[in-house]
Amino acid sequence: MYDVREWRHAFKLDPNKDISEKDLEKVCESGTDAVIIGGTDGVTLDNTLQLMSRVRRYAVPCCLEVSDPDAIAPAYDLYLIPAVLNSKNTTWITGAHHKAVKAYGEWMNWNEIVMEGYCILNPDCKAAQLAEAATGLDDDDVLAYASMAEHMFKFPVFYLEYSGTYGDPKLVEKVKTVLEDTVLFYGGGIRTAAQAAEMARAADVVVVGNVVYENIHEAVKTVRVVKQTGL
Amino acid sequence: MYDVREWRHAFKLDPNKDISEKDLEKVCESGTDAVIIGGTDGVTLDNTLQLMSRVRRYAVPCCLEVSDPDAIAPAYDLYLIPAVLNSKNTTWITGAHHKAVKAYGEWMNWNEIVMEGYCILNPDCKAAQLAEAATGLDDDDVLAYASMAEHMFKFPVFYLEYSGTYGDPKLVEKVKTVLEDTVLFYGGGIRTAAQAAEMARAADVVVVGNVVYENIHEAVKTVRVVKQTGL
Repeated sequence: MYDVREWRHAFKLDPNKDISEKDLEKVCESGTDAVIIGGTDGVTLDNTLQLMSRVRRYAVPCCLEVSDPDAIAPAYDLYLIPAVLNSKNTTWITGAHHKAVKAYGEWMNWNEIVMEGYCILNPDCKAAQLAEAATGLDDDDVLAYASMAEHMFKFPVFYLEYSGTYGDPKLVEKVKTVLEDTVLFYGGGIRTAAQAAEMARAADVVVVGNVVYENIHEAVKTVRVVKQTGL
Repeated sequence: MYDVREWRHAFKLDPNKDISEKDLEKVCESGTDAVIIGGTDGVTLDNTLQLMSRVRRYAVPCCLEVSDPDAIAPAYDLYLIPAVLNSKNTTWITGAHHKAVKAYGEWMNWNEIVMEGYCILNPDCKAAQLAEAATGLDDDDVLAYASMAEHMFKFPVFYLEYSGTYGDPKLVEKVKTVLEDTVLFYGGGIRTAAQAAEMARAADVVVVGNVVYENIHEAVKTVRVVKQTGL
C-alpha cells in the first residue's frame, strides 16, 4: 500500500502529542492504509523519529509528512511533501522545498516522494496561520486550486485541509468532480464514524487525526466505515 | 511540432516591439520550431493579438508565453505558462495562475498548456525585477530548482532565463545532467550564431529573442547552426 491511489483511509499522528502504547497499537492494527506522521508545531527530528520507531513495530506503511526539512530522516516508506497552493508566502510552495532538495537532493529517492497540493480552508487553524494561507476562498477558488494541482503541477494528491473543523461535504464532492488523476485527500475535524463515512462518499482518502487522542474507540471505527463506503 | 520535446530552436517575439513584414517573414520561414510571443512589459491583449495574426499567415507553430492572464486569447497552438521557481512573490508561482484558471479553467484545453519552471539568473533584467526573483544563486541552487521542476512539479520545461545577458554554458550543461523527462530551455543574450551553437550543445531548446530586432541576418543564422549541433 505504498501507492496513495489505493488508499481510502489514513491516520495522521502528531509527533508533538503523547499516545499510549495500547492506543498506538489500535491505530496501527486498525486496518488503515497508512500512518502519516506530521504536525504543525513542536515537530522535531527527535520526536518524529521516536514516533516512527514505535510505528515501525507494525506492518502498516509509515509516512512522514514533511513540515520542516530538518525533521527528514531516511526511515519512512513515503515522504508526503505539502505545497500550500493558497499560501501567500513562497516558503510553503517552493522555498522549504528548495532548501531540502539543495541539501538532500542527491540522496532522495523520488519514487518515495509524494507531492501534496494543499488547500487550507480553516482560517483559524495553526496550519493556516503558519503557512499564511489566503482565506475567504469561495468554491470556485478551491476548484481552481484543484485544477492547478492536477493539470499545472501534476501533483499526485490534492489535500483539502480543514484542520480542526469539520468541512463542507458538498464542496469536497464538487472538488472530486474536477479531479481525474490526482487523488483527493480530505482532512479535518472528523470526530465520528458517521462524519468519516460522509467524507468517504466525496473524497478518495479520508485522513483522521485528532480524534485518535480524544476517543480512540471512535477513531478506530472510522477505518471500517470508510472502507465500506463507496465513492 | 506542437511537442516541445521535439524542438531545438525557437524565436521569441516581443509584442511591444516593432518588426517589419520582411523581417517577420524571415523569422517565420527560417525553419525554427516555433515562434513564441511573449514579453515582460507593455504586453496587452491588443498587441499580442496583432502580432499573432501576422505570424498566423505562416505555417510555423505560434505559441503564447503568458505573462498577463488578460492577454490570453483562444488563438494559439500552445500556451507556455511560466512559474518562476526562484520568485519571492507567490503571484509568479501560483497567484496569476490561480486567477487565470478561475477565470478561464472551464474553457482551457490542458493539452495545449505547457508549464515552464523558470529560473531567472540575470538579476538586472526586467523579468527578474518584475517577478521579484531571488538573485545571487550558486550552481547548486540552480540544480535544485531544476530537480524540483522535474520531480516535484513534473514541469515539461525548465527554462534557464538570462534575459539580456549571455549565460554560463558550463552551468547550462550541468543543469542538463540532472534533467531527464523535463526539457531544458535556454534563453538570454544570444547575439551570434556561434553563441547559439554553444548553448545548443548544452540545452535542448535554444530561444533566440532580441537579436531578431538588432540583426535579423544573424538571428536567422542561429536556426541552422542550432539544428546542426548535436546535444
